[in-house]
Amino acid sequence: MTTTSTFSAIKEDGTKTMHLGRHVLAEFFECDSNVLNSLEKIEKLMVDAALECGATVVQKCFHAFNPYGISGVVIIAESHFAIHTWPELGYAAVDLFTCGDKCDPKVSYEFLRKAFYSKNASYTELNRGILDETDMKVLEVPFKVGVQEISN
Amino acid sequence: MTTTSTFSAIKEDGTKTMHLGRHVLAEFFECDSNVLNSLEKIEKLMVDAALECGATVVQKCFHAFNPYGISGVVIIAESHFAIHTWPELGYAAVDLFTCGDKCDPKVSYEFLRKAFYSKNASYTELNRGILDETDMKVLEVPFKVGVQEISN
Repeated sequence: MTTTSTFSAIKEDGTKTMHLGRHVLAEFFECDSNVLNSLEKIEKLMVDAALECGATVVQKCFHAFNPYGISGVVIIAESHFAIHTWPELGYAAVDLFTCGDKCDPKVSYEFLRKAFYSKNASYTELNRGILDETDMKVLEVPFKVGVQEISN
Repeated sequence: MTTTSTFSAIKEDGTKTMHLGRHVLAEFFECDSNVLNSLEKIEKLMVDAALECGATVVQKCFHAFNPYGISGVVIIAESHFAIHTWPELGYAAVDLFTCGDKCDPKVSYEFLRKAFYSKNASYTELNRGILDETDMKVLEVPFKVGVQEISN
């Protein structure tokens, strides 16, 4: 990945921190089970979710499990989108990892929430690869939790 | 994905919670840049990391970026492993998502830490798809943070 960093947060001492990636952990509850169990639909929706936020699709791989459930990943030039579905529970765990300022994973989250007919969902944004703004070196610290929202 | 849940934690009221997936966010710092920039090595190591913890590899897709950096995903029967590398910073962001009791993502984390010659790393384990033990329905709550460790 190229070193395109994104403004992250203003620290307590007033300095800024930057990060390499935005990693969204999305939990979709009470979804349409027919959508969650369709390999064709999930693949199309995940690709569309990437395109919707302006990402460039590089590769994709999807797999349907027996008796049910889909796993799949879309590699984008800006990182990746991944999904695992449990149609029997109406639940999908989605990861939207983007780098740079070009894409907003929140757009993809809202797109998928509607596409899955999810009645409840949660959105958590983590910053990964925290950079020191003085020398742009990656700091040896874990990710930071940014935004967290629950949509009902 | 099939509904194979894992014992999660004992809640304050003494009852247990279960979850569908273990999602490890691994941050590898001060790695060998030559390893991080080799498509062949990264692909092999990610597949080996999956096999090492007893996972079944279903599909894989990897991509080398210009001028440097690798992105890739291994879909396993138990979920997925994903990686993004920044060789110029000696940094890799890795996700190890497993379901069921068969695989321990901690094993894969330790394997990759050694394989990348990472001098510092952080391991955070999230529980995704929290279940109500009484009716095994997925609870409409975000993931929970389980273990977090920093290895120097």
